[in-house]
Amino acid sequence: MGEQLAGMKRTHMCGELTINDVGKNVVVMGWVQRRRDLGGLIFLELRDRTGLIQIVFSEQLSKEAFDKAQHVRNEYVLAASGKVVKRSEENVNPNLETGNIEIYVNEFKILSKAETPPFMVEDRNNVSEAIRLKYRYLDLRRPSMQKILLTRYKITRIVRDFLDKNGFIDIETPLLIKSTPEGARDYLVPSRVQPGKFFALPQSPQIFKQLLMISGFDRYYQIAKCLRDEDLRADRQPEFTQIDMEMSFVEEDDVIALNEKMIARIFKEILDIDLEVPFKRISWQEAMDRFGSDKPDLRFGMELKNLSSIFVDSEFKVFKDAIDNGGSVRAINVKGAASIPRRQLDELVEYVKTYKAKGLVWIQMSDDGPKSQISKFLKEDELTQVLNTMEAEKGDLILIVADRNNMIVYDALGHLRLEMGRRYNLIDENKYEFLWVVDFPLLEYSEEEKRYVAMHHPFTAPKDEDIEMLDKNPGQVRAKAYDIVLNGMEIGGGSIRIHDTELQKKMFKVLGFTDEDAEARFGFLLNAFKYGAPPHGGIAYGLDRLTMILTGTDNIRDVIAFPKTQNACDLMSDAPSEVSKEQLEELHIKVDL
Amino acid sequence: MGEQLAGMKRTHMCGELTINDVGKNVVVMGWVQRRRDLGGLIFLELRDRTGLIQIVFSEQLSKEAFDKAQHVRNEYVLAASGKVVKRSEENVNPNLETGNIEIYVNEFKILSKAETPPFMVEDRNNVSEAIRLKYRYLDLRRPSMQKILLTRYKITRIVRDFLDKNGFIDIETPLLIKSTPEGARDYLVPSRVQPGKFFALPQSPQIFKQLLMISGFDRYYQIAKCLRDEDLRADRQPEFTQIDMEMSFVEEDDVIALNEKMIARIFKEILDIDLEVPFKRISWQEAMDRFGSDKPDLRFGMELKNLSSIFVDSEFKVFKDAIDNGGSVRAINVKGAASIPRRQLDELVEYVKTYKAKGLVWIQMSDDGPKSQISKFLKEDELTQVLNTMEAEKGDLILIVADRNNMIVYDALGHLRLEMGRRYNLIDENKYEFLWVVDFPLLEYSEEEKRYVAMHHPFTAPKDEDIEMLDKNPGQVRAKAYDIVLNGMEIGGGSIRIHDTELQKKMFKVLGFTDEDAEARFGFLLNAFKYGAPPHGGIAYGLDRLTMILTGTDNIRDVIAFPKTQNACDLMSDAPSEVSKEQLEELHIKVDL
Repeated sequence: MGEQLAGMKRTHMCGELTINDVGKNVVVMGWVQRRRDLGGLIFLELRDRTGLIQIVFSEQLSKEAFDKAQHVRNEYVLAASGKVVKRSEENVNPNLETGNIEIYVNEFKILSKAETPPFMVEDRNNVSEAIRLKYRYLDLRRPSMQKILLTRYKITRIVRDFLDKNGFIDIETPLLIKSTPEGARDYLVPSRVQPGKFFALPQSPQIFKQLLMISGFDRYYQIAKCLRDEDLRADRQPEFTQIDMEMSFVEEDDVIALNEKMIARIFKEILDIDLEVPFKRISWQEAMDRFGSDKPDLRFGMELKNLSSIFVDSEFKVFKDAIDNGGSVRAINVKGAASIPRRQLDELVEYVKTYKAKGLVWIQMSDDGPKSQISKFLKEDELTQVLNTMEAEKGDLILIVADRNNMIVYDALGHLRLEMGRRYNLIDENKYEFLWVVDFPLLEYSEEEKRYVAMHHPFTAPKDEDIEMLDKNPGQVRAKAYDIVLNGMEIGGGSIRIHDTELQKKMFKVLGFTDEDAEARFGFLLNAFKYGAPPHGGIAYGLDRLTMILTGTDNIRDVIAFPKTQNACDLMSDAPSEVSKEQLEELHIKVDL
Repeated sequence: MGEQLAGMKRTHMCGELTINDVGKNVVVMGWVQRRRDLGGLIFLELRDRTGLIQIVFSEQLSKEAFDKAQHVRNEYVLAASGKVVKRSEENVNPNLETGNIEIYVNEFKILSKAETPPFMVEDRNNVSEAIRLKYRYLDLRRPSMQKILLTRYKITRIVRDFLDKNGFIDIETPLLIKSTPEGARDYLVPSRVQPGKFFALPQSPQIFKQLLMISGFDRYYQIAKCLRDEDLRADRQPEFTQIDMEMSFVEEDDVIALNEKMIARIFKEILDIDLEVPFKRISWQEAMDRFGSDKPDLRFGMELKNLSSIFVDSEFKVFKDAIDNGGSVRAINVKGAASIPRRQLDELVEYVKTYKAKGLVWIQMSDDGPKSQISKFLKEDELTQVLNTMEAEKGDLILIVADRNNMIVYDALGHLRLEMGRRYNLIDENKYEFLWVVDFPLLEYSEEEKRYVAMHHPFTAPKDEDIEMLDKNPGQVRAKAYDIVLNGMEIGGGSIRIHDTELQKKMFKVLGFTDEDAEARFGFLLNAFKYGAPPHGGIAYGLDRLTMILTGTDNIRDVIAFPKTQNACDLMSDAPSEVSKEQLEELHIKVDL
């Protein structure tokens, strides 16, 4: 066992000591980062949350301390008492914040010994992520990981402070709730008290925050854990954290204006960047038409153009057929990419196929004029019009996608635009381009389920002027929904909600719920609307993603203290795990493999 | 459907308007609390989070508004625009904060209609709790409920602010964790990805906060949701909230001193009470000896006295037998209760039996001298010594309990003391008597499990000087544990933790774990200790109970927005509920009734 503190008190954190502390007797505590022996001297770098300080042992200072220091190894935990001394010019370590001072130790304790760790605690190690996650407690000692979690904390502090000053109150909503499957898959929790029944873990506090508005709390927020049992993509976790808020007596502009102020404050305090508000605001339709995406990256141009009008009466069947069947022909112009090798063009064809496009037409603006694999199918006039529309110049590469399904055209060209932007280094990594995408469609048709599903969720209000289309033309109805997009990533989204029983019932009907089904699942919400519900709306941000952006990491596991793998496991504690027969019996369930 | 806001903006909250706003044109929004018609005038009281304001409609002000106001009923949601007017002297309503003003309405909108609610939204209603919980969104509109949740929020804000200024950082720990049953029952979550395996929901972030200390975060806090699947007592909920903190490089005094400052600040800011710090500190043994409780209520005396030495050689077998078998004879003195009716004395005998005492001996200090049911068994000398020890005076009632098991003596007399304190009005409800109970036993013997179990949890460190007793005399080992007690309630508890692999292993062994079992359940923690663990300790408070104290309610469901019943149900949404066969199939489980 290590020694006891026995009344020894820390006076300073390691990284906080400066040249102004020279001459003081101090006590520091921390982990040994590095050890060097030099004749009759032992130098240790001691690490805590704030940084490193060099502590020095010599026989002259204390024979006892010097002898004990012989046994100290990396990651030992020490408490050291001694005097702060200025280093001589030649001994200054410019790589250390505290590199111009050191502590001459006259007494110290070994609070905890350490075996040789499976990897060095330093930022530049080449350890596999699996090993990092298994020894997460060591991985978290690395300064870069400490900094990320500290930044995550700072973001929440700024958010809480901002919302508090704006009249929001933090109210906790329950974790054990009713399962109302619509959207992602619920995590379930068997009830012991009510055999055969289950709770669900919340996918979001959505319904509860609406009920809080109906309860008159006026402005609610919560930094809330949410859970979805989905197959994990690289940037998803089974449990994630939302900055969640809701406001009463507001319309879209109110929510948007308040949130711009909040985001501007976060970016100012964390990155010292002054964002220009208000942010740009474009409709979903415009975002799709210009960028082929509902979360466009505005850091570069290369916008989509619609070529459909050129080919309405074309003899080129592929294009005409797409247009005749409700689709379109659209293109982007990649400046300076005309001389792209044929092999790479073939790769691009494969690339757009992953987004369900059937093919890709290119026009290379070579020195000898435009070259294309479909030259022989196009009339002179058609080609000219295309080049004019695309503002094509020598050296450009025009990439065209046509499909009967407009969403495939958007999706393929939207991704192609991003891919070409990256390949041709058009994206300024230091830019922060915010925008609001508004006027989303309320519904989208699910081919899989053969019915309309809510684009955001079933509680999103339709635009007032579109309500009358709900019956006859639901696909055309726009929503009072807004997403906040940064550099091509959706960082938050919200809407004004339905606050009327009849409208909510109609919405459920359009989504294909029977009255009984709607009542069984959401009856309590429908009931709540009956007793006076204020107009209300809100927004939720993914805190994990926001932290990723603000700390410059592209690994979601780096911003969570104890994350799960993509297989939803905790490699450190080995969860999930088998449980005892007695536990399952008490819950009235059986494993059924 | 109600009318739309359509750009109408609220200028003031209802309760914020004052006489200084007279003459201003304002827009308020809220719920109709009350409606009065008076000739050509309609008076509505409009309610929002901040309070009530009277709004007035007349034909002269606006015929259109007046006509529409005819249709308005209680709980309708309105937006009203008009001028603030001073009320004439005779119309001032002294029961309303804003009772000296009103708004003359020239335009208003009915944002939402309301059916007649199942109960009136006001503090004094006699609605059953089941109805209140079913219509929780209406119950939460009552000013008293709004105030409680606002106070709860203020407490968390004070805590966060205090801890932030003291270098703590809020780090989220996971909800889906490994099941390591020891103590209460875990809620389980079946894994879909790993058939037959389960996550548990956290009973506390205990292990994770210790790992964060091992990770070098130095000071951690979290306001954390915790879950226990236990049969609910009146003051328990399946999910509850802890104010949870942990510090590195500290000893008991450090944690205690910091927490006294925090508690003092909460009481100052919420109740404007200046608490005297440091709080009293007494050992567990002293608490039991003097008050028969490890959470003594210090608002009154009536302390226990040990009479055992008087009866060591007594001929009264009941007492002697208790003492000979390791037990004791103890008593309290209820001043002025000598003339208690015999029937009530009999009730007290029944009362102590609920705490497993076999009987209760009384001595009534009547005008004719001491009277007792055991007079004939006691020697003159014994009686005299008892009366001297108890400082008995005419009019007093001495109540004596003897048992072979000291814990039964403590428990029976401790509860009897509280009961008599209440009956004789000895408890000053306006007093806040804090104390720390320290030096708890590390272990207690469980007759049920036939083994020692941890009194706090298996990670609590033994006192340094008691470690050597762990092998031979585990029941005598004291812990570095501390509970903070207020007015007889434990509001928080914590300890310095074990931070050494070998000591932790020994602790598991004393608790009867095999090496394999300890490794399978807590191997990751034992491993973590190997790579340099700092001394650390912390504390956790029940936020729900703290809020109950600070808002003066004795119903835990009043301090939680959406609570469960004692049967762990949500009456509003009707959770838990049955789920689909498909959901269970995906999780590889079957209901087994």
